[in-house]
Amino acid sequence: MTAQSDLHVLREKLREFSRVRDWDQFHTPKNLSMALMVETAELMEHFQWLTAAQSDHLATDKMAEVADELADVLLYLVRLSDKLGVDLFAAALCKIDKNALKYPADRVYGSAMKYSDY
Amino acid sequence: MTAQSDLHVLREKLREFSRVRDWDQFHTPKNLSMALMVETAELMEHFQWLTAAQSDHLATDKMAEVADELADVLLYLVRLSDKLGVDLFAAALCKIDKNALKYPADRVYGSAMKYSDY
Amino acid sequence: MTAQSDLHVLREKLREFSRVRDWDQFHTPKNLSMALMVETAELMEHFQWLTAAQSDHLATDKMAEVADELADVLLYLVRLSDKLGVDLFAAALCKIDKNALKYPADRVYGSAMKYSDY
Amino acid sequence: MTAQSDLHVLREKLREFSRVRDWDQFHTPKNLSMALMVETAELMEHFQWLTAAQSDHLATDKMAEVADELADVLLYLVRLSDKLGVDLFAAALCKIDKNALKYPADRVYGSAMKYSDY
Repeated sequence: MTAQSDLHVLREKLREFSRVRDWDQFHTPKNLSMALMVETAELMEHFQWLTAAQSDHLATDKMAEVADELADVLLYLVRLSDKLGVDLFAAALCKIDKNALKYPADRVYGSAMKYSDY
Repeated sequence: MTAQSDLHVLREKLREFSRVRDWDQFHTPKNLSMALMVETAELMEHFQWLTAAQSDHLATDKMAEVADELADVLLYLVRLSDKLGVDLFAAALCKIDKNALKYPADRVYGSAMKYSDY
Repeated sequence: MTAQSDLHVLREKLREFSRVRDWDQFHTPKNLSMALMVETAELMEHFQWLTAAQSDHLATDKMAEVADELADVLLYLVRLSDKLGVDLFAAALCKIDKNALKYPADRVYGSAMKYSDY
Repeated sequence: MTAQSDLHVLREKLREFSRVRDWDQFHTPKNLSMALMVETAELMEHFQWLTAAQSDHLATDKMAEVADELADVLLYLVRLSDKLGVDLFAAALCKIDKNALKYPADRVYGSAMKYSDY
């Protein structure tokens, strides 16, 4: 993560946010992983009764709620990575490369079988 | 998200990753929200039986596994945001501002009560 | 829960299972709620890339895996309820009655709107 | 599941609940697995910022909320099992036997290592 990056900016803002509230004591990796999970569920809840097609066409007010949930997930993810000392951007780049090797385009083209074996 | 940002870089890489595999057909927001959830659970699983203190001091090999899971969560989050047309960085900045209003530092200092009411 | 009930039988078996392994020390409600979550995600993972129709027609070997995951969820749920001193069957009966009042059949007939507002 | 069992009683009540509301159309296994997940997260949310010790001593009003969430998880679990044609009690008994073989009491006594390898 370079000093100018998005994820760095968020990391710094969240450090300050927690510092001025004395919330670091609650931000153990264990607790943060739970909070991340809860936010992810709140995000997913918006889609639970929708058809796949409906999930692609949210109404404007629902989209605003969903954007807020996406943000919550990112904020806890950045915070958890920071507390663990993990460079999130570097880890993500590395994972994309791993996935490219695991799923060669010519072998998995158009197939969900690689995902699920169903 | 500016053209040079971390999140933009990941978004572009994931678009290409999916395009060359013809996987867009599976990447409905509904399905992606489920995949994001599953990855978040795999991340949290590393912490489930640890004490808070243990979760702060992972062994090196465990840390590498955790970093991989953090990456998976970010990749699905970026992909889901992209399919929904949400600017994830802008949404996150906006959410930090909202949270700052919701939790004034002088009123919630050092208190978990604002989180949970316990 | 009467002495002969399914849930009582499972509760007793799980108490004994934990006792002979000295695992009660790990079974705090916090930890058990995390374990329950992880198992639920493993269950959901089987459905993440399937269409709604496909999820209704699992292959036999997949069904056996899914049955195992359903069992895992129930076992942690019974265990967590026991540690909290909650009568799970009584709570479930009570919740069905609450839901019947919340969702009057004649007003929500055939509508997912009550679920999601979409 | 015998005709008198707890889980059978709940299964029958939920079938009727869904039938009179014409909600079977929404109750695909995929959707129900998502709903189960969301309820489990709402349950876990009660514990996210608590210490292990605090999670063992909930206040009375919190306990009532937690009991409601435990019930929600059970109801969706019973419903999902029913839609899949899985005998939940039989699956749970079978899983306890499998776990007993996987974790011999004399080898895992008092150890969380079997859980997590940490």
